Amino acid sequence: MEAVLTSTQKSFPLEHLISKHAQKRFSKHFSVNKTSKDIVPHPHPISLGAGVPHHGFFPVKAIKVELVDEPFPQESTHLPTPSSSSENLTQSIASTTDSFTVPQVSDEADEIDLRYGLQYAAIEGLPPLVNYTKQFVERCFPPAFQDWTTIITNGAGNGLNKACDLFLDEGDTLLIEEFTFTPILASVRDLNANAYPVKLDFSADGIDVRALDFVLANWNTVNPTLKFPKALYTIANGQNPLGLVATRENKLAIYALAEKYDFAIIEDDPYGYLALPPYQSDRKEEAPLTIDEFISKFDSSYLTIDHSGRVVRVETFSKIYAPGLRLGFIIAHQSFIHAIANYSNISTRSPSGPSQILVNNAIKHWGGIDGWLAWILKVRGEYVKRRDVMLDTLFQSQAAKDGYIKVIDPQAGMFVSVVLNLDKSSVEKNDYPAAMNRLVEKSVENGVTLVIGPNMCFSESAMERSNFVRLTIASAANHEELAEASRRFAKSVSDLFAELLLDGE
Amino acid sequence: MEAVLTSTQKSFPLEHLISKHAQKRFSKHFSVNKTSKDIVPHPHPISLGAGVPHHGFFPVKAIKVELVDEPFPQESTHLPTPSSSSENLTQSIASTTDSFTVPQVSDEADEIDLRYGLQYAAIEGLPPLVNYTKQFVERCFPPAFQDWTTIITNGAGNGLNKACDLFLDEGDTLLIEEFTFTPILASVRDLNANAYPVKLDFSADGIDVRALDFVLANWNTVNPTLKFPKALYTIANGQNPLGLVATRENKLAIYALAEKYDFAIIEDDPYGYLALPPYQSDRKEEAPLTIDEFISKFDSSYLTIDHSGRVVRVETFSKIYAPGLRLGFIIAHQSFIHAIANYSNISTRSPSGPSQILVNNAIKHWGGIDGWLAWILKVRGEYVKRRDVMLDTLFQSQAAKDGYIKVIDPQAGMFVSVVLNLDKSSVEKNDYPAAMNRLVEKSVENGVTLVIGPNMCFSESAMERSNFVRLTIASAANHEELAEASRRFAKSVSDLFAELLLDGE
Repeated sequence: MEAVLTSTQKSFPLEHLISKHAQKRFSKHFSVNKTSKDIVPHPHPISLGAGVPHHGFFPVKAIKVELVDEPFPQESTHLPTPSSSSENLTQSIASTTDSFTVPQVSDEADEIDLRYGLQYAAIEGLPPLVNYTKQFVERCFPPAFQDWTTIITNGAGNGLNKACDLFLDEGDTLLIEEFTFTPILASVRDLNANAYPVKLDFSADGIDVRALDFVLANWNTVNPTLKFPKALYTIANGQNPLGLVATRENKLAIYALAEKYDFAIIEDDPYGYLALPPYQSDRKEEAPLTIDEFISKFDSSYLTIDHSGRVVRVETFSKIYAPGLRLGFIIAHQSFIHAIANYSNISTRSPSGPSQILVNNAIKHWGGIDGWLAWILKVRGEYVKRRDVMLDTLFQSQAAKDGYIKVIDPQAGMFVSVVLNLDKSSVEKNDYPAAMNRLVEKSVENGVTLVIGPNMCFSESAMERSNFVRLTIASAANHEELAEASRRFAKSVSDLFAELLLDGE
Repeated sequence: MEAVLTSTQKSFPLEHLISKHAQKRFSKHFSVNKTSKDIVPHPHPISLGAGVPHHGFFPVKAIKVELVDEPFPQESTHLPTPSSSSENLTQSIASTTDSFTVPQVSDEADEIDLRYGLQYAAIEGLPPLVNYTKQFVERCFPPAFQDWTTIITNGAGNGLNKACDLFLDEGDTLLIEEFTFTPILASVRDLNANAYPVKLDFSADGIDVRALDFVLANWNTVNPTLKFPKALYTIANGQNPLGLVATRENKLAIYALAEKYDFAIIEDDPYGYLALPPYQSDRKEEAPLTIDEFISKFDSSYLTIDHSGRVVRVETFSKIYAPGLRLGFIIAHQSFIHAIANYSNISTRSPSGPSQILVNNAIKHWGGIDGWLAWILKVRGEYVKRRDVMLDTLFQSQAAKDGYIKVIDPQAGMFVSVVLNLDKSSVEKNDYPAAMNRLVEKSVENGVTLVIGPNMCFSESAMERSNFVRLTIASAANHEELAEASRRFAKSVSDLFAELLLDGE
C-alpha cells in the first residue's frame, strides 16, 4: 500500500505546490519494523509493542447521548421571556428527546465504540467518520478529479493552519480576499509568508476576476519584491464577513486563473450549508425542502469544477453541530492529504475520539448522510427565521429611515453586514477606522457587541471601504433578544451620526 | 489584566530561553476592540459579535457517562478465556457501574456543562479542568517557583511539540537522553533544530551527571559546529524505554547543571504515576496504599526543586484515563505558558470540549483530586500485577535459564526492558541493530510484537548498547494473554540464539 501511494504521489503533477518543509517531512514510528518477505507471520499475534493500554483500563464503560429533534425545541425560543439570559432547567429536561448509547464494544462497522473511540487511533481520523465524510462529499459536491480523500482535523482553525502549512514556505505569497476571516493571517505570518489582498466584486458576488487576472499577469511589475502566489484563500459560499455566495460563473473564471497561473485554491466553507433565500419583508412560511433540493442550493464547491486536484476544501462541524468539538475535515488530492497527515503527526496528532464519537454516532443514529443533511436543514431553517428577524428590525429602525445604513442581505451564513453611509457625514475615507471604532463605543454604551469592518481586512485599499459592521444572528438566546440587539445596534448608529453631524457643523 | 501579564513577563529572567519565533507571536481577535475609559458599558449587553452559535443550536441535549469501579471489573480478566481476543458483551453490560450526567446547563462551578463544553472556549482549556490541574499540581508536586500555571493540551505528543516550539529556533540544540521516546525527534527536525544524545547512568537510574557536565563545560571543543543547548528533554520517572526513575539526588545534580549552564528542562512524565514496587518472585498482596502514601512514591518532579521557573512539565491523560481523549496539560512559568498559548492559538486552538468534559466531570464525580488519585492508584495496582506476571514468566523461561536475557525490573511505567546477552554470541556491537531486527522476525513468526532498542535511540554510541527490547504490559486483554505473549517472546529469543550460535560455529 505504502509503495502504491508513493508511486501515485510521484505521478501527481501538482506535487510542486507542496511547501518544501512539508515535502521534507516523513512519518516513521519506532514500533514498526521491516521484515523479510519469507517470514510467515503467526496467525494470532499478541502485542507487547506500542504502549497502548487495553480498553479494560479505561474508566468509562458506556456513554448515552440524548439528542434534540430540532434546534431550540422549546416553544420559548420564539416568545419573549421575562429574563431571556437565564435558563429554564426543568423545561429543558422535560422536552422529548431521542438517544443513542456508545457501548464499550460494538460490531457495527459504521459505529465508533469506546474500545476504538478512546484508544490511540489513525492520524487521519477514525475510519467510520472518515467514511461518512467521503459519502457526504460524494452526495453533496463530488470532486471532478480522481484520487481525492479526506482527513479529520481539529476544527476549521486547525484545518486552515494545516492548509497554509501545506503550501507556504518562508517568503511565499497567499492571495486572500480583501475582507476576510483575519485569523488566517496569523498562520501566514507564522510561516513568514505574505498575504496579498484580492479585490471583491460585490456585483459578481465574488472575487473581481479582471482585477485578479491583471495583477497576476503583471505580477513582477506590480509587486517586484513579492514571490508569485502559491495559493488563493477564499470563502466563496457565505463569504465572511459579507455573506456573499460566489456564482458558479465566477468560480469557473477564478478556477481558470488558477489553472493558467498554476496556484492552489484553499476553499474555506463553514457557512455554505446555511444557504438563505432572498429576504422578503412579507415572507410566508417556506415549503419544506427535500434533501435533494437542499443540496442543490449549496452545490457550487470549487471541488466540483476541479479537474486537476488543486482545490483544498476546509470543512468544520462547528457551525452545524457544535464548536467545542474542535472537529472538521479537509477534502483534497491524496498527495496533499498525505502531506497534511505528516504535519498532523508532529503537531495535533489524532483528533479527539470523544468528539468523533459524538458526530459519527449521531450521523449513524440519524440514518446516515441524508439524516445528517436533514439536521443541517433544520439548523438552516432557524437561521432563515433569525435573518428575517434582524432584517425586519433593521429596516424598521430610525437609522434606516434616515438613510444611515445599507443592509447587505446575506446569501448564506450567520452574518448580516451593514454598510454605514458615512458619505452622509464629513468623515474622510482614511478616518473610517476611527469612525467605526467610535461606533463600537456607542454600541458598548447601548449594550450590543459587534465586529467592525476595519478588523476584517488587512490592506489600505480595503480599509477605505471598511465602513461596515458584521452582525451575527447566531448568538442570541431567542428571536426577541435578537430583535432587541438589532434595535440597540440601530440606536448606536443613530447616536454615532448625531455626533458626526454635530462635529461636521 | 493584559497589561499586568505583560509586565510580569518582562520581569521573568528566563524570557531569553523562549525561541525567537515564539516571542514574535501575538494573539489578537477581530471581535475585540479597545474603547475609551470614559465609556460606561451597558449592564446587560447582547452579542452580535463573534460567530458563536447559541447552545440551542447544538443537537446534544444531555450526556450520561457510566463509569467502572476499577480497571477490568470482570473476573474474567484474571482467568484464561477460551478465546481471549473476543469480547463478552453481556458480561460487560451486566457488571455494576455508577454514572454522572452532563446537563445542558449547570450552575456548579466545578462541572462542565454542554453549554460551555460544546462551545468555543479558552485556548488554555475550560476553567474547571484548568483548576483541577492546578489543584493536582499543588497536591502532588508543588513547584518551588512562583507564577506557575497550567494549560490544557491535545495530549502528550502535542504537548511535546509545543514545548519544543517554545524553546527551539532553527539551528538550536536540544539535549535528549540517548534512549528515548523517539517521536520527539520529529518535532526537533521540523524546527530545523538538533538533537544531542545525553548518556544514561544505569546505576544512578538517571542521566550521567559527570558526562553531561563534561560535555557542557567543553561544548565548543567537543561540538564546534553545534549551538550550545537551549534545553534538556528528559523522561525522569519511568524512563521510556528503560523504566528507570531518576533519584532525587540525580535530579538535584542535573538541575544544578541547568542553573549553571542556563538551559531549560522539558520533563515528560506519562508514567511516573505507575510507580512499581521492586519485583519479588513470592510477592504477597500489597497492603492498600493511602493517597498520601501513593503521592510520596512519585513526588520527585523537577518542578519541586525548580526555584527559577526553568522546568516545563508535560502531562497526559492517555495512560491513566484513555489515549483517545487526546488530552494532557503542561505546567510551567506563566511566561512560558503564555507563549505556548499563542502557539495553540494558531495551531490546535482549544482542546476538545467533549474530552475535557469526560475528564473533568469524572474527577468531580470521584470527589475531586483525591478521588482522581484513587482511580490512578487502582490503575497502578493492575500494572503491578501485570509486571509480576511478565517477570514471573520471563524468569521461568528457557531463555533466562540459558542466560540469554537480563530483565530490567521497571521502577515505574508500563514497559519491561530486556537486555539480550549478545556477548554469548559472536555478534559484533555494530551488528546489534541487524541482530535485533532478526529478533523481530523471530517474534513475528512466534506471534508477538515488540519494540527493539535500535528504534529507541538516535546516536551511534547508543546503538552499540541497543541490544534490548521494550515489552509493554499494557495491551494484553488479561494476565493469561500477557503470560502467553511473554513465553512467545522468550521462545523468540531462544530461536534467535539457536541461529546465532549455529552461525557462529
